[in-house]
Amino acid sequence: MPSLALDSKTISVGKKTPWSVHSKTLRGGTQEGVELVEIDNGKLSFAVLPTRGMGIWKGKCGELELGWNSPVKNPVHPTYVNALDNGGIGWLRGFNEWIVRCGLSSMGAPGKDVIVDNNGNALEAFLPLHGNIANLPAHTLSIEITEEEIILRGTVDETMMFGPALRLETEIRTSFGSSSLSIIDTVTNLGDNPTEHELLYHVNYGAPLLEQDAKFSAPFKQLAPRDPRAAEGIDVYDHFDAPLPGFVEQAYFFELAGKSGSKETLAMLKNAAGDQASLVRFSLKDFPCFTLWKNTAGQNDGYVTGLEPSTNYPNTRRFEREKGRIITLAGGESRKTTLVVEALDTKKAIKSVEAEIKALQKGAKGKVHSEAIERFSDI
Amino acid sequence: MPSLALDSKTISVGKKTPWSVHSKTLRGGTQEGVELVEIDNGKLSFAVLPTRGMGIWKGKCGELELGWNSPVKNPVHPTYVNALDNGGIGWLRGFNEWIVRCGLSSMGAPGKDVIVDNNGNALEAFLPLHGNIANLPAHTLSIEITEEEIILRGTVDETMMFGPALRLETEIRTSFGSSSLSIIDTVTNLGDNPTEHELLYHVNYGAPLLEQDAKFSAPFKQLAPRDPRAAEGIDVYDHFDAPLPGFVEQAYFFELAGKSGSKETLAMLKNAAGDQASLVRFSLKDFPCFTLWKNTAGQNDGYVTGLEPSTNYPNTRRFEREKGRIITLAGGESRKTTLVVEALDTKKAIKSVEAEIKALQKGAKGKVHSEAIERFSDI
Amino acid sequence: MPSLALDSKTISVGKKTPWSVHSKTLRGGTQEGVELVEIDNGKLSFAVLPTRGMGIWKGKCGELELGWNSPVKNPVHPTYVNALDNGGIGWLRGFNEWIVRCGLSSMGAPGKDVIVDNNGNALEAFLPLHGNIANLPAHTLSIEITEEEIILRGTVDETMMFGPALRLETEIRTSFGSSSLSIIDTVTNLGDNPTEHELLYHVNYGAPLLEQDAKFSAPFKQLAPRDPRAAEGIDVYDHFDAPLPGFVEQAYFFELAGKSGSKETLAMLKNAAGDQASLVRFSLKDFPCFTLWKNTAGQNDGYVTGLEPSTNYPNTRRFEREKGRIITLAGGESRKTTLVVEALDTKKAIKSVEAEIKALQKGAKGKVHSEAIERFSDI
Repeated sequence: MPSLALDSKTISVGKKTPWSVHSKTLRGGTQEGVELVEIDNGKLSFAVLPTRGMGIWKGKCGELELGWNSPVKNPVHPTYVNALDNGGIGWLRGFNEWIVRCGLSSMGAPGKDVIVDNNGNALEAFLPLHGNIANLPAHTLSIEITEEEIILRGTVDETMMFGPALRLETEIRTSFGSSSLSIIDTVTNLGDNPTEHELLYHVNYGAPLLEQDAKFSAPFKQLAPRDPRAAEGIDVYDHFDAPLPGFVEQAYFFELAGKSGSKETLAMLKNAAGDQASLVRFSLKDFPCFTLWKNTAGQNDGYVTGLEPSTNYPNTRRFEREKGRIITLAGGESRKTTLVVEALDTKKAIKSVEAEIKALQKGAKGKVHSEAIERFSDI
Repeated sequence: MPSLALDSKTISVGKKTPWSVHSKTLRGGTQEGVELVEIDNGKLSFAVLPTRGMGIWKGKCGELELGWNSPVKNPVHPTYVNALDNGGIGWLRGFNEWIVRCGLSSMGAPGKDVIVDNNGNALEAFLPLHGNIANLPAHTLSIEITEEEIILRGTVDETMMFGPALRLETEIRTSFGSSSLSIIDTVTNLGDNPTEHELLYHVNYGAPLLEQDAKFSAPFKQLAPRDPRAAEGIDVYDHFDAPLPGFVEQAYFFELAGKSGSKETLAMLKNAAGDQASLVRFSLKDFPCFTLWKNTAGQNDGYVTGLEPSTNYPNTRRFEREKGRIITLAGGESRKTTLVVEALDTKKAIKSVEAEIKALQKGAKGKVHSEAIERFSDI
Repeated sequence: MPSLALDSKTISVGKKTPWSVHSKTLRGGTQEGVELVEIDNGKLSFAVLPTRGMGIWKGKCGELELGWNSPVKNPVHPTYVNALDNGGIGWLRGFNEWIVRCGLSSMGAPGKDVIVDNNGNALEAFLPLHGNIANLPAHTLSIEITEEEIILRGTVDETMMFGPALRLETEIRTSFGSSSLSIIDTVTNLGDNPTEHELLYHVNYGAPLLEQDAKFSAPFKQLAPRDPRAAEGIDVYDHFDAPLPGFVEQAYFFELAGKSGSKETLAMLKNAAGDQASLVRFSLKDFPCFTLWKNTAGQNDGYVTGLEPSTNYPNTRRFEREKGRIITLAGGESRKTTLVVEALDTKKAIKSVEAEIKALQKGAKGKVHSEAIERFSDI
């Protein structure tokens, strides 16, 4: 890819904010050949990885680092990720992004499923953790600078003969001087036949937002621990501890509450002092399911929490199909969704978001199951 | 690879035909780094993929497009093909060529086989669909321009310690102004021990040749459907329908009839009007087996038919071994074969080929089995 | 990587020896993109492969070639090695080095093991032959030229989220005009939790050192054949035959004897005439286990023997764990080891090494088991 360099010095747009867009190709080790597009809107900056399915490696809003420290230090070229490795969790060899998509045709826990082969026969296939999209490169990439915004567009194909043949067209938009970005994704079934589709955004935070006494909040109808391990922490599901080497992850499945009509909802992580936060905003029409992933392990093992809006829960595809949660796209059908990710750096802004959450919570039951429930978990 | 540009303006050869050879490296997405050599003999042009085992992506003869439209849009770098994916049909992630080899040590349906490991012990190994050769790059590549022809040569190694160690040396020849190309392949066992070898040419056509009422013809002693699904269409095995989303492929296994002595034979696909066609010519000494693959699925799912000469039938290697059909190459042994692929664009030329087929059919029984037979199919 | 060219003409150091360091990127076929660093100390030259885990492809000391001829002809980019291929012996698709590391988290025979997944649950994982490190690229590389030595340093990470997260920092040192090189490796557990670690150096020789009547020697307490096949050759375990197509490998597991205190030991391969040899020197504190691999197969199948110092025997990790031989590195812990590889080209030097071996053998039992023993082999 030819490298790209645009900024407020060379292109005059309506805003006075000093912004920039730079691209480069990473070299050396497992990052050899990975493309990086660094976008700075003057307040929020972030680095997009076209080579890794248009994921976002790291971000920074003012002085607030967004992202986390994985044992995997640099963006990893798909060459070095064999999803089938280590019993089907090879995806973890490349996992270090702030925001990474899981999907498009499967996105949850590894497990066997039955697919239809070219002969029309049932074929048992092992579907590895989190699917393919994070390890497929964009084949188109473009930047648009408007009077208001920087818009990065990319296209990633997850296709094969005898399908699925799914195309991701993403638009990552950020306004000059703003503290947020929007990911507007369109997934299209390029084939003529109906095909299943799963999509999850793994939005991940380590220090400094994640720390002892950091707090999660979201309006919900019900939530349940994924498994017995998560049930152990159900009483403090929304509270975070300091890094603890050996800590085993806990995941909670939510049915969130949204605005009537638009079904808009949100979920926030704030720091202990309550003066820094980040949140995701989306519609339950787009993403009816939500997972909170708590992995407050050692700093060197990946001290991280994930806010994960998704089309279904990240269980095996077989289980999610049984529960009727998997989306089917008809031949040629497209599905357009929006995810907004924001950073907040004042108590006032955080309180305002908390008020939003509270308002939405008002009309919702807020049931906390103490054990995993059959509706959500493969128990 | 340094790029190559030769043409009739810069090199004077005996023919007046304007010919050219250009090479380039594709960039972006899953085609990043794929080498392409475009050869135009003045009448027939085609694009060879050294990075994908010297397969031929697309061709064009006059105005006639040769090839098909796969859901996989561009040539795919082997980086993005894990043959073990999706229950062993990962090869399909890269499948979009007009002419692609399957092999060299296995080439058929995915399945378990027993191989000998380094310790001399039996090791159960899963052999994925269609083998390795299409996802291995050529390490030598050269062009020769003679007074008559353009000759592209390449070498692809499919080797490993404890074997198999097979080398493909291919020569793709086309005469100036002609409507055909020849693929002269030499496969050599680089090792000292005997090794099994399978080779199939998947020669594929979509629109415009493939269309409602397109027709297949070849002289044969017997043919049988591969499986019950193919048996459903046995009465119209040589006739093609319009694209039908959801159509499940049908495959027919042939014992073709050839000339006495040379065992030369041929198989043709012609369009509905009978004024355009393409055919393959080869000797049954080289390729005793032939498969007709009919996949008249939706246009966006890969509306395609394959004419497939091969050393054995594309069943699992285990089954083909049981049937005694697998070639064994002794240590150091080479096997040289020739496949000619032609395009025809006049009714007269097509009728002449049909007469050839008829003449060969005369001496042959032409038995059409209505069900899959044990000799050909793993039933 | 920018290419590197340093030599005794451009950099003045204390020695008069004409030395050089050159780097290049290999192109074409499966070696596309492989980095090569050629180091010549004036007497010993060798080619390091940063792209293949800092292994050493080939060496030459004076006129003596060090290394072997594999059916795999050139250094293979990790792109073309799927460790899971062929029943888990896909590593052999890239195997042709003189010196290659196996490890870092598993390094032996392929087999199932139980790992802990992200959920803290037991996950059955298949661990393929010889581990990952040979197919991971260095992400740092530097050269230091001192008054005495050439020092090449590189760092290779074998990491994944939920671990293991192991870092190899290697220092390959060679003095001007010397016949030896030292590999000083530091392996660090980057994570916070304890993690298992296995390391084996596969130091391989073919012709001319390996030939009819070549001889192996090392001081040992006991040795045993790995399996019945090796037991067949136990009486001549230290003697080599001429190439024999179809020969099935024989491996012998040694408990070597070392100097008291330092536990320094050595193992040598010498040619039939006794005027050329190569040896490995190491401490049993670093590498308590040693394997002699005899594969005197046909010249084209890889006529080769391996001298293999290691942290444990190259059985499945499950078995080695049962035997209590696997090293565990605590969070943040590093382990530094040294391996010296020498070439000898005079009878006198060889006799002197043999005297060393004899001296060490004196205090050791030298028990030769005629059959595989439970302590060493998974029988």
